[in-house]
Amino acid sequence: MTDSPDPDPSIEQRINTMLMKSGSGPQPLTLATAESCTGGGVAARLTAITGSSGYFLGGIVAYSNDAKASLLGVSPRTLANPGAVSAACAREMATGARDALGSDFAVSTTGISGPGGATTRKPVGLVYIALATPDRVTVEEFHFPGDRTAVTAAATDAALLMLLHGIAQHPK
Amino acid sequence: MTDSPDPDPSIEQRINTMLMKSGSGPQPLTLATAESCTGGGVAARLTAITGSSGYFLGGIVAYSNDAKASLLGVSPRTLANPGAVSAACAREMATGARDALGSDFAVSTTGISGPGGATTRKPVGLVYIALATPDRVTVEEFHFPGDRTAVTAAATDAALLMLLHGIAQHPK
Repeated sequence: MTDSPDPDPSIEQRINTMLMKSGSGPQPLTLATAESCTGGGVAARLTAITGSSGYFLGGIVAYSNDAKASLLGVSPRTLANPGAVSAACAREMATGARDALGSDFAVSTTGISGPGGATTRKPVGLVYIALATPDRVTVEEFHFPGDRTAVTAAATDAALLMLLHGIAQHPK
Repeated sequence: MTDSPDPDPSIEQRINTMLMKSGSGPQPLTLATAESCTGGGVAARLTAITGSSGYFLGGIVAYSNDAKASLLGVSPRTLANPGAVSAACAREMATGARDALGSDFAVSTTGISGPGGATTRKPVGLVYIALATPDRVTVEEFHFPGDRTAVTAAATDAALLMLLHGIAQHPK
């Protein structure tokens, strides 16, 4: 195990480096996840990094609508319309995870990874990712190309990037 | 976990096949996860399979002790002694996930993936995996060799296998 800097660190390694650097206080900023279409992949990437237990509190994989409601507090109204794959649902998932885990940041994913579940208005590849910080909740809409594997991988990367950028912008 | 071409289907694909076959009723048996050391990897493997939304309800990645207590109902007494990495904690996590998600089966993982967190009595590679079914809760103790990546991958495989065997033994 050398200490030479990785020339091309992964997003999750950059998150680790940033959080460890920012730790002027006794405790770094803490993270949580709320995943639907990425199915636990964002949490798995974060926890692959040595030292992640110092800032990653946990996550909720809310695959069914019931789980989104009961574990993350997404409102039945949102789940009925505009539905589970929507900016509103992504926002409520991120806020719900931040509340449930008591973290500083929480990132959420909800989308159509395919091949099933698509409609004319919600095609395969449509993904909403939200980030809840101590100050606000932001949400972005993505249209990722490819099959289930490609959409899930792209959504996982995008969620980690949104988390990284959110941490970078957060005042120390 | 193989990189070379393998004619055998993955464990998660075999779970899918078994659940879809058993679906004589209107609804197949349902699954949930409660992960600590595997960090979401079991849920990610299950949800990589097309059609998993028909039986996978969701999961909880309980990385911190607070998350194990608040989201899965692990008792503070268990977390104090014998601790988060124990057969007792694995049992409570599996039961807690089954209750929280309302699933038929739930599998849990808790262990020392390293390199930190090890003690003389709890070395790197010690992992407890529990399976809660409608009838009972079983728990197994594993000692996996290798580093963080190897331990996590082995624990993820073992959890999926325990789930597969539990489903296979379950009376239709």
